[in-house]
Amino acid sequence: MATLRIALAQINPTVGDLAGNGAKIAEAMRRAREAGADLVTFPELAVSGYPPEDLLLKPGFLRDCRAALDSLVGQIRGIAAIVGFPDFANGSAYNAAALIHGGHLLGVYRKVELPNYGVFDEKRYFAPGTGSLLFEVNGVRLFVTICEDVWVAEGLAERLAQRNRAHVVVNISASPFHAGKLATRREVLAAFARRTGAYVCYNNLVGGQDELVFDGGSLVIDPRGKLAASAARFEEDMLLVDLAPFGKGEPVSPRDTSGQWGRRLAIESANSRGLDPVPPRVAPELDRTEEVYKALVLGTRDYVRKNRFKKVAIGLSGGVDSALTAAIAVDALGPANVVGVTMPSQFTSSETLSDAMRLAANLGISLLTIPIAPMFASYLEALEDAFGPGAPGIERENLQARIRGNILMALSNRHGWLVLTTGNKSEVAVGYCTLYGDTAGGFAVIKDVPKTLVWELAEHVNRKAGRDVIPCSIIERPPTAELKPNQKDEDSLPPYRVLDPILKAYVEEDKAPEELVPLCPDVARLADVLRRVNTSEYKRRQAPPGVKITPKAFGRDWRLPITNRYGNGRLKAAAQAEKK
Amino acid sequence: MATLRIALAQINPTVGDLAGNGAKIAEAMRRAREAGADLVTFPELAVSGYPPEDLLLKPGFLRDCRAALDSLVGQIRGIAAIVGFPDFANGSAYNAAALIHGGHLLGVYRKVELPNYGVFDEKRYFAPGTGSLLFEVNGVRLFVTICEDVWVAEGLAERLAQRNRAHVVVNISASPFHAGKLATRREVLAAFARRTGAYVCYNNLVGGQDELVFDGGSLVIDPRGKLAASAARFEEDMLLVDLAPFGKGEPVSPRDTSGQWGRRLAIESANSRGLDPVPPRVAPELDRTEEVYKALVLGTRDYVRKNRFKKVAIGLSGGVDSALTAAIAVDALGPANVVGVTMPSQFTSSETLSDAMRLAANLGISLLTIPIAPMFASYLEALEDAFGPGAPGIERENLQARIRGNILMALSNRHGWLVLTTGNKSEVAVGYCTLYGDTAGGFAVIKDVPKTLVWELAEHVNRKAGRDVIPCSIIERPPTAELKPNQKDEDSLPPYRVLDPILKAYVEEDKAPEELVPLCPDVARLADVLRRVNTSEYKRRQAPPGVKITPKAFGRDWRLPITNRYGNGRLKAAAQAEKK
Repeated sequence: MATLRIALAQINPTVGDLAGNGAKIAEAMRRAREAGADLVTFPELAVSGYPPEDLLLKPGFLRDCRAALDSLVGQIRGIAAIVGFPDFANGSAYNAAALIHGGHLLGVYRKVELPNYGVFDEKRYFAPGTGSLLFEVNGVRLFVTICEDVWVAEGLAERLAQRNRAHVVVNISASPFHAGKLATRREVLAAFARRTGAYVCYNNLVGGQDELVFDGGSLVIDPRGKLAASAARFEEDMLLVDLAPFGKGEPVSPRDTSGQWGRRLAIESANSRGLDPVPPRVAPELDRTEEVYKALVLGTRDYVRKNRFKKVAIGLSGGVDSALTAAIAVDALGPANVVGVTMPSQFTSSETLSDAMRLAANLGISLLTIPIAPMFASYLEALEDAFGPGAPGIERENLQARIRGNILMALSNRHGWLVLTTGNKSEVAVGYCTLYGDTAGGFAVIKDVPKTLVWELAEHVNRKAGRDVIPCSIIERPPTAELKPNQKDEDSLPPYRVLDPILKAYVEEDKAPEELVPLCPDVARLADVLRRVNTSEYKRRQAPPGVKITPKAFGRDWRLPITNRYGNGRLKAAAQAEKK
Repeated sequence: MATLRIALAQINPTVGDLAGNGAKIAEAMRRAREAGADLVTFPELAVSGYPPEDLLLKPGFLRDCRAALDSLVGQIRGIAAIVGFPDFANGSAYNAAALIHGGHLLGVYRKVELPNYGVFDEKRYFAPGTGSLLFEVNGVRLFVTICEDVWVAEGLAERLAQRNRAHVVVNISASPFHAGKLATRREVLAAFARRTGAYVCYNNLVGGQDELVFDGGSLVIDPRGKLAASAARFEEDMLLVDLAPFGKGEPVSPRDTSGQWGRRLAIESANSRGLDPVPPRVAPELDRTEEVYKALVLGTRDYVRKNRFKKVAIGLSGGVDSALTAAIAVDALGPANVVGVTMPSQFTSSETLSDAMRLAANLGISLLTIPIAPMFASYLEALEDAFGPGAPGIERENLQARIRGNILMALSNRHGWLVLTTGNKSEVAVGYCTLYGDTAGGFAVIKDVPKTLVWELAEHVNRKAGRDVIPCSIIERPPTAELKPNQKDEDSLPPYRVLDPILKAYVEEDKAPEELVPLCPDVARLADVLRRVNTSEYKRRQAPPGVKITPKAFGRDWRLPITNRYGNGRLKAAAQAEKK
């Protein structure tokens, strides 16, 4: 039996950019053909970008996607291709894959399993497919699936691939990143490969789209479940593999299938014939810190660039959150495109100010210094009567943060810079931030990074650079908002090494309050943390998007009502009982 | 055949307030029993409030809901009840209705049709039910459905209600308001009643929950499709109806049903026996302006109260948007709980300032005056170098709006007032607003009200009051942001009577750009409007929630990506061709 050369085109499309995505697909097809591939595959919904969300509700958008696909069908000759696109027929939209060859659309597969959990809303948009798409290239039997189809054990895809003795299962995918997900993906695909006895060619998307990062890392798994080849992560790539031999017998009779197998879509290709085999390529593994770091860089770069910004501004407080954000921005965009702004107040220590300056120098970015004292004084004077008597309170702290937000936004409006905010997930979770203050900006780079991981990433930056790009004093200083004298985060919150595991269990794992007591035996303190999480939803709702790196981020996969009296009643009762 | 007295308890629960909702349900049950009802019904998910969103992903929440239901089962004697609650069994959650009688949970119906469009995400949370719940009270056969079940023509509910010759179809619902929806609802329910030959008792929820308002207006439709009774709208109510006669024969044999009919749940009740019949009550119809106004009042009151705020602050510009918002707030909360804040600048005309003062006096609310000149001057001085040379631009305009936002938020933080924002839907659609400026606040009362409807509502306020609560000059002045000299909205945007129909077609009806040309033959102008809509998503994403009054609001029913290059390419090409 012949060898088959497949090219997995791991591209980075932009949602809605039908012309740009089409050009990218056509270009990758040409390169795949030149490399001798018999078949080239593309990620899920490559034509539209993923996820197009409510664009899919616009009939005009679906028509335009179809026109973009038709244009590809006409353009491409000399190679077979599997291209993801949103299909529309009989009043329903489908998440579909087109099989294109020789200037013809030979077949369309429609995704059967539609995820409607976490960040996914596919049942909002798509009807499930009911058929399958099997075809031969040079006698090799290929079976097409889309993402979720192979995640359902003993699902339709698995049964049909087995029954039809597929040699190769193509899975086009748009699988969003979170730390550690690659291992899960490999396990799922390896199990699928073993159960079906087929190669699995998993073609993932790469790139950032709002809060999601698609990490690429396309995979080829052999029928025993072993990794045969893998593409780079967090960048575009084309993974070429020669698959052989294919030892299985003939497929069972056409009546056993539910799809178009009866039509025996058979393609002949001489592209790879006589060429030297491509050696299997396996991309190096990334450790957890590095994969998170790369996700943050790619997510930031793509948000900025795809929204047509060139430069970003970041408020540098001298703390580790803004330092890490600036380091990521420099890696994403280059130092010439990052502007630091330091906005000292009477509560800013000379150490933090000089740290901010040192950081800017180390990163090679320009730094603006704009003290906020004059604005703060003018607000206090104007508001003196309206504030009335009584000790100064939170309104003074928030005012300072909001003056800084205003300054950054004024610079943004004046110069066209996108403002990157610097809040971490621990702060966002407990609402330890000022709405319209430090949360003001277009993109919240580390909003899904818990504080303890912020420190790890800061050290990672220095380790990679081989020098203290982020000054040690920034990493080691106890966290402080510096909005009143001698303020420390730990005055209001438990230490982050205690807080972060509580938040992980409560936010990401949906644990009940009672189940968290082992993580924080001080029940009153625990109840206070949960109260902060529960009552901060209004702040999160108005926060900018940022890169998802955990299994559950404060974004599309977190949909809590603002008006919500479900709390920790039993825990509070327990805390009060303890006090007595 | 006996008469049956049913009480439709149209209650206003709060999401997550299981204890409060339970008490409300128990109290309504007692009142229904005292009124001689044989059966009392409650809205969809009355136990948890609707929609509980991702609370439903917390196993502890589902357990607590079940405990709340069990507590009701034990409490209630002497009346049969249908109570909506989130059920959990075998690893799945269900949108369910409990039949309770005599201290026992007699049966549970699980919603079959799960809406997953618009504002609904029910497939994210619930598995569909597969059975049905039929029971008899004094020989009257009742069939239970939940909301969407009766919206599907020839669906399972309809077929089973027919086949079992149900006398009464109970439909417990949580149907969000938009203007004109009641008529649709009545048509759908009347058609269902005619096709099944049964009474339909439609028990809707009432109250505000974040961006949704449930308008009540529970209905009883007779088997010929005629309105037999209806409850008040936008307030709690209990609708009592005596249903008779029931002329149908016996139901077909139990094997024809898929549910628990085989068990013949038969309840005897003497509650209504011998009582005088209750006269059918039909609530007065509301015209469109009045129903929208009431929705805005209820939505605002419930957001403020359910989030435990007492007072609100509103920036009064002297324009019609803030005037209407203030009038709504006064109707929702009383004048003592509304504080107006006027923040004049050098661009504020003396007319608008005096209009704001007149408005505050008319509404009987207190007014703070805080000029923004000192803050504006201090920012401009501090930013002089950073702004660099060149003519003043949008950054100056936005700064003024953001100073006002800061002042309002400072007052909010100091005094615990919730800030109501005043932007209308036309502005929100085209991004004619300043992020962190006039969009800063907790609740955006009129964010879904197009500007032309704002004017209508303002006149409606005056008509109802029989005097110009909102000064005529406010309604008649050409709209202006007053952020630079002689600024008018129409310098940047088409007149609102042209703009609003474009926005309705593009935003609410998903029309393609080419289809809008008849609404605005000036293609370049049209393209500019659509460009503004497409590029303002980042502002909308950070905006506060507000009351949905149209079929598609900028909230849960609008999920467009921020990063999105799908635009109006063909239209722009047409506009350029025209120029040449």
